[in-house]
Amino acid sequence: MASRLQILDLSNTAKVYYAPATATAPGTRVIHVSGQGGVAKSGHAPADYESQIHLALLNLRRVIVAAGATVRDIAKFTVYVVDYDPKRPLHRRPIQRFLRGHRPAMTLVPVPVLAVAGWLFEVDAVLACPTPTPTPSVPRALPAPVQSVDVVIIGAGLAGLAAARDIARAGLSFVVLEARDRVGGKTWSQPFSSGRGVLELGAAWINDVNQPRMTALVREFGLDLIEQNTTGNVAAQDLDGSVSPFLYGDLPKFDGATRADVARIRDQTEADCQAVDACRPVDTRLDSMTFEAYLRSHNASEKAVWTATVWTRAMLGVEPRDVSALYFLNYCKSGGGLLQMRSDRKGGGQHLRIRQGTQAVSKKLAARLPQGTLRLDTAVRQVAQEDPSSVAVVARDGSVYRGHKVITTVPSPVLKTIEFTPALHPVKRAWAESAGFGEFYSKALMVFKSPFWIAKGFCGLAQSFTGPAAVVRDTCSPADNSYALTCFMSGSPALEWSRLPSAEREAQLLHQIGALFDSADTVKEEFVEMVLYEWTTDEWAGYGCPCAHLTPGVLDALGPDALRIPVGNLYFAGTETAGEWKGYMEGAVRSGERAAKESECVSGRTGRSRFARGQGTVRRKFSYSGRHLTSKNKLRISAEIQYRESLNTEPMRTCMAPEW
Amino acid sequence: MASRLQILDLSNTAKVYYAPATATAPGTRVIHVSGQGGVAKSGHAPADYESQIHLALLNLRRVIVAAGATVRDIAKFTVYVVDYDPKRPLHRRPIQRFLRGHRPAMTLVPVPVLAVAGWLFEVDAVLACPTPTPTPSVPRALPAPVQSVDVVIIGAGLAGLAAARDIARAGLSFVVLEARDRVGGKTWSQPFSSGRGVLELGAAWINDVNQPRMTALVREFGLDLIEQNTTGNVAAQDLDGSVSPFLYGDLPKFDGATRADVARIRDQTEADCQAVDACRPVDTRLDSMTFEAYLRSHNASEKAVWTATVWTRAMLGVEPRDVSALYFLNYCKSGGGLLQMRSDRKGGGQHLRIRQGTQAVSKKLAARLPQGTLRLDTAVRQVAQEDPSSVAVVARDGSVYRGHKVITTVPSPVLKTIEFTPALHPVKRAWAESAGFGEFYSKALMVFKSPFWIAKGFCGLAQSFTGPAAVVRDTCSPADNSYALTCFMSGSPALEWSRLPSAEREAQLLHQIGALFDSADTVKEEFVEMVLYEWTTDEWAGYGCPCAHLTPGVLDALGPDALRIPVGNLYFAGTETAGEWKGYMEGAVRSGERAAKESECVSGRTGRSRFARGQGTVRRKFSYSGRHLTSKNKLRISAEIQYRESLNTEPMRTCMAPEW
Repeated sequence: MASRLQILDLSNTAKVYYAPATATAPGTRVIHVSGQGGVAKSGHAPADYESQIHLALLNLRRVIVAAGATVRDIAKFTVYVVDYDPKRPLHRRPIQRFLRGHRPAMTLVPVPVLAVAGWLFEVDAVLACPTPTPTPSVPRALPAPVQSVDVVIIGAGLAGLAAARDIARAGLSFVVLEARDRVGGKTWSQPFSSGRGVLELGAAWINDVNQPRMTALVREFGLDLIEQNTTGNVAAQDLDGSVSPFLYGDLPKFDGATRADVARIRDQTEADCQAVDACRPVDTRLDSMTFEAYLRSHNASEKAVWTATVWTRAMLGVEPRDVSALYFLNYCKSGGGLLQMRSDRKGGGQHLRIRQGTQAVSKKLAARLPQGTLRLDTAVRQVAQEDPSSVAVVARDGSVYRGHKVITTVPSPVLKTIEFTPALHPVKRAWAESAGFGEFYSKALMVFKSPFWIAKGFCGLAQSFTGPAAVVRDTCSPADNSYALTCFMSGSPALEWSRLPSAEREAQLLHQIGALFDSADTVKEEFVEMVLYEWTTDEWAGYGCPCAHLTPGVLDALGPDALRIPVGNLYFAGTETAGEWKGYMEGAVRSGERAAKESECVSGRTGRSRFARGQGTVRRKFSYSGRHLTSKNKLRISAEIQYRESLNTEPMRTCMAPEW
Repeated sequence: MASRLQILDLSNTAKVYYAPATATAPGTRVIHVSGQGGVAKSGHAPADYESQIHLALLNLRRVIVAAGATVRDIAKFTVYVVDYDPKRPLHRRPIQRFLRGHRPAMTLVPVPVLAVAGWLFEVDAVLACPTPTPTPSVPRALPAPVQSVDVVIIGAGLAGLAAARDIARAGLSFVVLEARDRVGGKTWSQPFSSGRGVLELGAAWINDVNQPRMTALVREFGLDLIEQNTTGNVAAQDLDGSVSPFLYGDLPKFDGATRADVARIRDQTEADCQAVDACRPVDTRLDSMTFEAYLRSHNASEKAVWTATVWTRAMLGVEPRDVSALYFLNYCKSGGGLLQMRSDRKGGGQHLRIRQGTQAVSKKLAARLPQGTLRLDTAVRQVAQEDPSSVAVVARDGSVYRGHKVITTVPSPVLKTIEFTPALHPVKRAWAESAGFGEFYSKALMVFKSPFWIAKGFCGLAQSFTGPAAVVRDTCSPADNSYALTCFMSGSPALEWSRLPSAEREAQLLHQIGALFDSADTVKEEFVEMVLYEWTTDEWAGYGCPCAHLTPGVLDALGPDALRIPVGNLYFAGTETAGEWKGYMEGAVRSGERAAKESECVSGRTGRSRFARGQGTVRRKFSYSGRHLTSKNKLRISAEIQYRESLNTEPMRTCMAPEW
């Protein structure tokens, strides 16, 4: 859609994140937004300023979405701040992230108090957007479809391929549309330059204890596993750059009080995370605050905050101040808890690697699909509901695929890039607009001639408060005589690092590895090459990795199921939608299986496996094992009501599978 | 252009300088302006509130000009004030002056701090203006020209006539278009009612030491000079109305400490003014503050501030709080310094008068022009660039004059009244919009039967802190037995006085003259008549006199040369553009000579004196004395670069004469 706003700049003005002025075209629909306070849907206001900023921006976003507008339609943006300190402009970072490069006119107004006691931050806005054109009752005709199937699946990552497998098994027809020229999505395995062993540019780890789907697939496909090395020391780099080793499983060698505090905060986080429901995290207080505010509310010491920063950076590429506490706790919970998800040992998130590469799973899954059901290089442009039982999926090349149902497996930020007709449910849109990736997230794979760190007593794991790498892990394939350290480049220091020339990046990283494990000379001598893929430039990943996160208030305002819940004939999968092992391959497979079940709409157990074709409604009760209203189902019905209430919209018609 | 804004008033509301509401017409382009702080281009924030108000308004103006809008397009105006004291609404005066009678909707928001440390005042605005129509590549056809010449000169004051004389000498053809029914511009000499001697309604003084142009013209035309009387006492009227005499050249008889302080401030001002470059005043700090803030930054006593108020009132009709310190210092410097410019003695600004009247110089210059080259009653409506070598100047009566070049000599505020096609360079527009005159400036010529003040030991000079006259000077023509005191009615007290009925004005002024020099009875007895011309009602002068001034920030933001620098085929003269004796006749003549040189584009010394006619570009190097890149020229080139950068525009194509 053509931009309605013109940004007016003075050429001699340093370009900041807002514009000196914006001009709206005549004939523009102007929307005035009331002051939005930094409060949760219930009115609860967190005690800290940054959490309130996130909530106020979310509340503004909800109005923007309800108005059928986008952030790019903001002409004027006015923020009101209590106890404003010009030396600590905390508003800048969240607002810049909120605006995503759009530059409205802006005024900041410090105030002594705001309308409601406890409010610290408020924002109002003027939007300029085109007059909405009513959706035509008869959708415009699309070209004849290339393929008409029961289910169109968008994305050939693990979620899409797992869904395809199950749909095929159910005897339904389908097609998988993949934007990339390869399958695997965020699994992407490249051979070492030696030709032996693989470097994982994307997802790398599974375990064989609590990841039954991935374990089964690996076994089914006869793939070999490599156990993560946890023998020996971990290197810990402190804020001053100094490095001290500590035994894997222990805490870093801070002074006694600090160690106790780090342990206390870790245990508090673990306990709170265990108290959160994996599938439906509901806690207004925890969702109203950033994870940093959560840490500080527990009087975390600076070292404990830094330790937690390593967690969020390595796990989501995000700073603690940018993510909802509830979202982070729920993310950990989906992997069994903070400790389990972070563990490299048996049952932990990083226990096993696949010698042939994680992408091999997708390749094998794809190879088993019936011929003609997988279309690579087929990015989706539009998803158009034609009648209650038919959805047209239009590719960027104009080809059309028609299905009774559509499963999308794209990351939520990518939903914004698809034109839905009629428009995607506002709650989904609000989620897709709110979900974001960390500033930077990339794995730098440093290939060496030998695992020199082992001789020095290290297992290869390191954590750093300074960066550029937040976490380093051994990713050798000893059977292939291939040796590498995988450096997790994420969060703010990695963003700075990413802006350096390639040689400088390599030098900085080698310097850090030298500091962590050995002398700079040894490291240089051992170094073979650096292999790097920047997911933050990957359009199909939604410009980020490994998993989108949410700022405070989104789960609470939109509902914990809002992304995953089906709408009409649309079903939503992807690791992000998983209840278990969110952000992991296991979660992707689970989400695909769940969406396949939902889209089949009738479980295998009821024996119905075909849609009623024709003009009839597809609204029907999901039925399994004779139970219609279990307590779980009740929860889901209340979820839908809450969901409907969260924006003033038509109810979503849906049938839902229970095994999330 | 039709007004796009409707002012909505309530009939029961007293009309203040803003409106209860404004309405924008349908189809309007709405512009939202970001909060503009009271800072210089560099970000420097002056310490005082009033200077920041001026700077914030200038920053708003720059955005308005960049948007192609004007102050009259402001629909809503919001000001944010730190430490606001409702009993001292300091914002009102500069805002009223900024708005020039336009009444937007307005809200004042007191705030504890602003976005940036040190900011005291911020303003944002909503503008409503018509959609800019793209300039047609082929301008609409104009009627056949009345005259086609090399150079069209706008204005037959001293600047225009001096330019015409030089252009004629260079062998080029020209026409001078004058809006008035007379030549002379702001020189306008009227005979005493006795028929002997003249009363100068406008410019009156020259000197024969450092004003060689005027001296030469006076000699060339055989005019007689009258030396200013400085023998005897000056009358000083204090704030309480009390009068005490002091010898011309001394300081008023304040107490010792006050005298020392007044001398200190005078000497400081003189020193700072001598440090300023006359042609290119550059000093961010001095330009960021009002002259009053400058005085207070030197801890000036109240009497010293009042003394300086007499200076600015008498010299520019302006209060110290309304003018940039740098502008005032530069204005003084152009006349050799504060002391010289204010002096009535040899070499001073007010040393000699012309017995036949200053207008005689213009009349003589005009009389020597070739027939048909001067058109009175020909106000210019439009200046349209037709092709690179042709500019059409359209008069209000529709007649068209075509030239290769155009020299305009109108005061900068008058530039706003001419339609330029394509639009005048935004930096020029910003300057023209920013330049203003004092609230009131007029000379009340009080004619008496005899110079009664001489008998009382006075030279006729007086200064007053109370007014209504700020300064009084003897303007007798003894050889004609004609006696008058010229009262400089300027600044705020004079504005109040100007609103009185004529008889009351006369009475007040006679009362003041009585207090200054003699008894009220004597003065009444001696009084013949009051002759007055209000330049503030004179359209062609730009509603003010003697010279436009600038508020803080304009020189710094737009560049010190911004008014004078040529653009394309347009050249800018007028006393305001002079480097020496700005605001004086000498400056007018110098500016005309300079513009003539520039428009000839090739100095006499290079021997080239004709334009290449036809379609070729007129961009060519100015060449003089074989030097192409002297340090002066370099300065000018950097000035142009700064100038270009100061608003987002095409570079200005220009050739410039060096002798500014």
